[in-house]
Amino acid sequence: MRRTLFADEHEQFRAAVRSFLEKHAVPHTAEWEAAGQVDRGFWKAAAAQGLVGFAAAEEFGGAGLRDFRFNAVLNEEVVRTGTVGDGFSLTNDIVLPYYLDIASAEQRQRWVPGIVAGDTAIAIAMSEPGTGSDLRAIKTTAVRAAGGWRINGAKTFVTRGIQADLIIVAARIPDSDGGGFGLFVVPGDRAGFERGRKLDKIGRRAQDTAELFFRDVLVPDADVLGEPGEGLHYLMGNLAQERLSMAVVAVASAEHAVDTAVAYAKERKAFGQPIGSFQANRFRLAELATRVGIARVYIDRCIEAQNRGELTAAEAAGAKFWTTELEFEALDSCLQLHGGYGYMEEYEVARRWRDARVQQIYGGTNEIMREIVGRSLGL
Amino acid sequence: MRRTLFADEHEQFRAAVRSFLEKHAVPHTAEWEAAGQVDRGFWKAAAAQGLVGFAAAEEFGGAGLRDFRFNAVLNEEVVRTGTVGDGFSLTNDIVLPYYLDIASAEQRQRWVPGIVAGDTAIAIAMSEPGTGSDLRAIKTTAVRAAGGWRINGAKTFVTRGIQADLIIVAARIPDSDGGGFGLFVVPGDRAGFERGRKLDKIGRRAQDTAELFFRDVLVPDADVLGEPGEGLHYLMGNLAQERLSMAVVAVASAEHAVDTAVAYAKERKAFGQPIGSFQANRFRLAELATRVGIARVYIDRCIEAQNRGELTAAEAAGAKFWTTELEFEALDSCLQLHGGYGYMEEYEVARRWRDARVQQIYGGTNEIMREIVGRSLGL
Amino acid sequence: MRRTLFADEHEQFRAAVRSFLEKHAVPHTAEWEAAGQVDRGFWKAAAAQGLVGFAAAEEFGGAGLRDFRFNAVLNEEVVRTGTVGDGFSLTNDIVLPYYLDIASAEQRQRWVPGIVAGDTAIAIAMSEPGTGSDLRAIKTTAVRAAGGWRINGAKTFVTRGIQADLIIVAARIPDSDGGGFGLFVVPGDRAGFERGRKLDKIGRRAQDTAELFFRDVLVPDADVLGEPGEGLHYLMGNLAQERLSMAVVAVASAEHAVDTAVAYAKERKAFGQPIGSFQANRFRLAELATRVGIARVYIDRCIEAQNRGELTAAEAAGAKFWTTELEFEALDSCLQLHGGYGYMEEYEVARRWRDARVQQIYGGTNEIMREIVGRSLGL
Amino acid sequence: MRRTLFADEHEQFRAAVRSFLEKHAVPHTAEWEAAGQVDRGFWKAAAAQGLVGFAAAEEFGGAGLRDFRFNAVLNEEVVRTGTVGDGFSLTNDIVLPYYLDIASAEQRQRWVPGIVAGDTAIAIAMSEPGTGSDLRAIKTTAVRAAGGWRINGAKTFVTRGIQADLIIVAARIPDSDGGGFGLFVVPGDRAGFERGRKLDKIGRRAQDTAELFFRDVLVPDADVLGEPGEGLHYLMGNLAQERLSMAVVAVASAEHAVDTAVAYAKERKAFGQPIGSFQANRFRLAELATRVGIARVYIDRCIEAQNRGELTAAEAAGAKFWTTELEFEALDSCLQLHGGYGYMEEYEVARRWRDARVQQIYGGTNEIMREIVGRSLGL
Repeated sequence: MRRTLFADEHEQFRAAVRSFLEKHAVPHTAEWEAAGQVDRGFWKAAAAQGLVGFAAAEEFGGAGLRDFRFNAVLNEEVVRTGTVGDGFSLTNDIVLPYYLDIASAEQRQRWVPGIVAGDTAIAIAMSEPGTGSDLRAIKTTAVRAAGGWRINGAKTFVTRGIQADLIIVAARIPDSDGGGFGLFVVPGDRAGFERGRKLDKIGRRAQDTAELFFRDVLVPDADVLGEPGEGLHYLMGNLAQERLSMAVVAVASAEHAVDTAVAYAKERKAFGQPIGSFQANRFRLAELATRVGIARVYIDRCIEAQNRGELTAAEAAGAKFWTTELEFEALDSCLQLHGGYGYMEEYEVARRWRDARVQQIYGGTNEIMREIVGRSLGL
Repeated sequence: MRRTLFADEHEQFRAAVRSFLEKHAVPHTAEWEAAGQVDRGFWKAAAAQGLVGFAAAEEFGGAGLRDFRFNAVLNEEVVRTGTVGDGFSLTNDIVLPYYLDIASAEQRQRWVPGIVAGDTAIAIAMSEPGTGSDLRAIKTTAVRAAGGWRINGAKTFVTRGIQADLIIVAARIPDSDGGGFGLFVVPGDRAGFERGRKLDKIGRRAQDTAELFFRDVLVPDADVLGEPGEGLHYLMGNLAQERLSMAVVAVASAEHAVDTAVAYAKERKAFGQPIGSFQANRFRLAELATRVGIARVYIDRCIEAQNRGELTAAEAAGAKFWTTELEFEALDSCLQLHGGYGYMEEYEVARRWRDARVQQIYGGTNEIMREIVGRSLGL
Repeated sequence: MRRTLFADEHEQFRAAVRSFLEKHAVPHTAEWEAAGQVDRGFWKAAAAQGLVGFAAAEEFGGAGLRDFRFNAVLNEEVVRTGTVGDGFSLTNDIVLPYYLDIASAEQRQRWVPGIVAGDTAIAIAMSEPGTGSDLRAIKTTAVRAAGGWRINGAKTFVTRGIQADLIIVAARIPDSDGGGFGLFVVPGDRAGFERGRKLDKIGRRAQDTAELFFRDVLVPDADVLGEPGEGLHYLMGNLAQERLSMAVVAVASAEHAVDTAVAYAKERKAFGQPIGSFQANRFRLAELATRVGIARVYIDRCIEAQNRGELTAAEAAGAKFWTTELEFEALDSCLQLHGGYGYMEEYEVARRWRDARVQQIYGGTNEIMREIVGRSLGL
Repeated sequence: MRRTLFADEHEQFRAAVRSFLEKHAVPHTAEWEAAGQVDRGFWKAAAAQGLVGFAAAEEFGGAGLRDFRFNAVLNEEVVRTGTVGDGFSLTNDIVLPYYLDIASAEQRQRWVPGIVAGDTAIAIAMSEPGTGSDLRAIKTTAVRAAGGWRINGAKTFVTRGIQADLIIVAARIPDSDGGGFGLFVVPGDRAGFERGRKLDKIGRRAQDTAELFFRDVLVPDADVLGEPGEGLHYLMGNLAQERLSMAVVAVASAEHAVDTAVAYAKERKAFGQPIGSFQANRFRLAELATRVGIARVYIDRCIEAQNRGELTAAEAAGAKFWTTELEFEALDSCLQLHGGYGYMEEYEVARRWRDARVQQIYGGTNEIMREIVGRSLGL
């Protein structure tokens, strides 16, 4: 179905992104995968191209483009090239909104220009060793100290945790009424802050993911985001966009898998015929192509809803679980269609298959997504 | 997700349809189910209300509304009330287009007013005892005779075959080059035409379905639709709308199933709690509600595409198989949730479950739908 | 895989059962379906043939065959012929064990001969309008009265509830410590006992299923089974065999569906070839045949375990849910393969499909089965 | 269900295998994974322990144990420890039978003692770059030469291709009538034979897999296995055991996954409760535990059938596809249950999940397995 989501400006943006990635990312994929992180120079170049923080106001170096269609275009092109990892979606879709919407004017002035310039790598630390998708179980604490707060605890699964210069840390404030949460900004060189090892993941290996440790880390009042005690509320407010971002990636990835599989099914032969001429393969691909087409239409409507401020938590949760499961199923079928080659790392489908699996887990597991939808039904 | 498909006029139409059905259909459902057909008087009343043939031009008594959104509204309301059978979609979505688009001006003048007035019940006879979804295997023949054609053969699974006054018969013309097909209009009282018994179906029992027999039935030239030999082409041209119509019904039916199940899950208790509070049920309903919401968005876009003349055969085929399987899955889950009551005919879910199963079969089996999508991928 | 379960005596029994059913049941199926129950004369004849109560001791007219392989053979042959309903499994597999194992010597003497002779139709009433699979929620009460107990309450979904002469009623004893349950035997003509209407079910229409009402029904002490207060314990003790019985039926039914589908796929043609030559159909049937073969091996081992007294509640529960879902899936695929004919009542697959659906519900819903297995894992 | 497959001797063998693996394999897993192959010294030690080639006659150093239960025990223990790769099943289950059953007495004398002693690593080369599961499409040729045959071609996906000392090569004999195949034994140091690089696989990384190249490799007549021209027949004859071997591994692996998941579900907490107490998790594990239990019973019966020489190609094919899909599903669920940790290489489930995926592909893809079963049904 013809997409009706984009205007000319988005398509121009797409062309620019694509040629930038082809030139600056694709040649480095293997090297970044081996290094376990994307070179900082890349982010600097991407920022110069306007791909980092474009939602920020022009006064901060941004383009004032609070239009999620640009974010979607960028995510789609990153998926197409199959490189770079999660840095763009993390920065633009997930973390930047805290700086734009919750930070004070002074904080924005102080932090946003560096982010938009690609000088300041940002991350957010929510999950902890003992808590998965259960934010309320966070054990890291922030205790009142002279002129600020003392943070103690450990975080894990922090995307870009190794590279980040500025980390938003969600911490429990034990003395607040009923135990609220706050969001505290910690620079990477702050005393008491330590990074654990780069986590060794099944996939998404170009993306550094880390454990972080906080021992009496002092956060001055000036570095607290919004109201201490309102952190959970802020987190909740940003999760719909985070999950939409993941769904955008999932649909683009599933589309890519189906395209790859269809092309391979036409070219590869077995028993004297293209393998796509075997009905079981044809039906499998017909099934996937249909569902991916349906997902595409749905996600485009979700993007419109998000731009209008109408996307609900349940819609985002449903989009996230349904598309990420479709993504993996599409890649798994694509791998199977490749036979033995699908299991070989030299075939791109192998890496994409490994990379995709985490989508059902992070950003809230798909079980949590179903809980959210179920509760929205009043159950 | 908020629907954006309809304008005020459609919502007014919906209100009118709903109140008409509540008054004229709902009280008669059981009686029609027992009789195996809907009373002709109902169709006369529906026509008077403007629900039959509204796509026809005003000169024929129609409203000139060639806007599939009205058809969709009517189908949705029929599903909601759970009564009447397939008469509306058959007449408005599937058969009428042949009379409006392929019939000559003279034929339109002769036939359309009666259809729109609810006096003339129409049907189309495609399937044959030996051919399922394989139109090319049709064995009924039309042979040139003085001033017309002689039809011989048998048809089956003809919806409204018992009640129809005017039947479009697809027949092979053996002497045409390579064996073309023609569409021949046969009135119910024509010599040589006989109706078999009303078929006893698992569901959709208020809808008469029949076998029809043709023995040397003479069709004068004036009653041939379009070019003899072009019949297959005409059929193909109408199938996308037929399948879209089925998908509209499927989504409305799945929505109804989820709504029913959610309501029941809140009210019914087991082990001291509402059964919807059990996570397995909550997840099941979250899963279905999510997919139904996605299907709704997709089908609305398909309706827009159909109105613009852009809906492809593959999109319609994909929509048909995916939504009809979702429909049955939703009803099956709804039935299961009802426990023993779901298996009892007095609970509406039992009938709806029986009724829904055929959607995966008629209008081209879902296997044929996958073939169509698969071929559109070049496989 | 070659079955190793049976000895010669079982195969002789099978031959006898088969010829009996061909002669006495098959010709009456349509009539029993229409009547909503199997004629009592049939049961008398079956008893004369030794098919009712053969597990009872010879002194009561039985054959002392406490070997579930005979029960399995009987169930398999009933499925093969597709007639008779649930009477044999209800009597032999589910209800008779209460009379043989829990009843006193005096009660056995009084009741078992009539059962074995086919004169006394037996049933058990557990479910209630407000309780599905949750036995602990039973509201029917048994209150101490002079020389016995007074039963008040309502039961539903009672298989053979219309025909039964002797009904075991599970009732709560409110004054027992913590609220125990008892099993009370009520003859069909007892004052205060009334039968509701024959329930109108989606399938299994030859089997009468009923609601039963108890208003101050007096049960003398002599008609209480075992210890009052131990009823739940007795019920639990018999459920494994009940579920195994259902699994035996399910596997036989799934086998029949696959055999029917394979035969039809070889004979029926579309697009000029047998439909079984289409790979999607071939794979579907290969999938089902494989799983049915696996299920057969498993159930045969469960039967051996049951004969040794080793079959656990969790094994029986797992067997029940897995095989009944396989059964329905096999029948659903068989129906789909038949195309339009599959939806027609004149094709046997239509009735078998309707009949099969309840297997996932009765005997404890498949959700309850999963609970039982889950708990056995310590979760 | 209690296993009845094994006698005391098998359980003693199991104990010996387990302690051997714990001591000699487990401590080296990480090192072998990194090296991409298992150290030759390990195989020498395993042979000394009697774990290599025990099916060979005592005169060759074996134990004459042609009882697949020993093979099964060994495979099960390898899976349990999660180390070593495919060397045991490759040697004992797949390749050795060619030497025992097809080789001449002279060949057996010459080759078998070295294999059994762990000095001679063996492999078989079937797949080629252009042929997946389609053996008939093999392009490697064997052409008559003075005193033997000249082999030309390329092979891929050869398990143990790097380490093998003796490789059975399947090659087409173009001048034979209709194009037969032969099995030719090539030592690793033969002129014209070259090994390609060690293939970089998604998983099973401790197992070396390779491409092999043959340029005018001379195989003397004395090194041809059986009749030239009968190779396809020999291959077919061994495939049932190969697939059974894979199914044994699959069931053991699925069992391990379920055990791991159940243990983790009891210990890990979220939202204040063990995650196994959430019904969706409990049902998921109940579902898997049930199916794994069923698979276990089935495979044990297949092993018995294989020992009796009764296991059919279709039964082995069905066992292979059903169990390998179950294996992956179990591991995928286990991974998901672990949340973010499941995606981390330090958790064993991550490696096991990667390792398992190829089981649906090698030994004949699961699509080929369905073809085999489908054809056995006469479709």
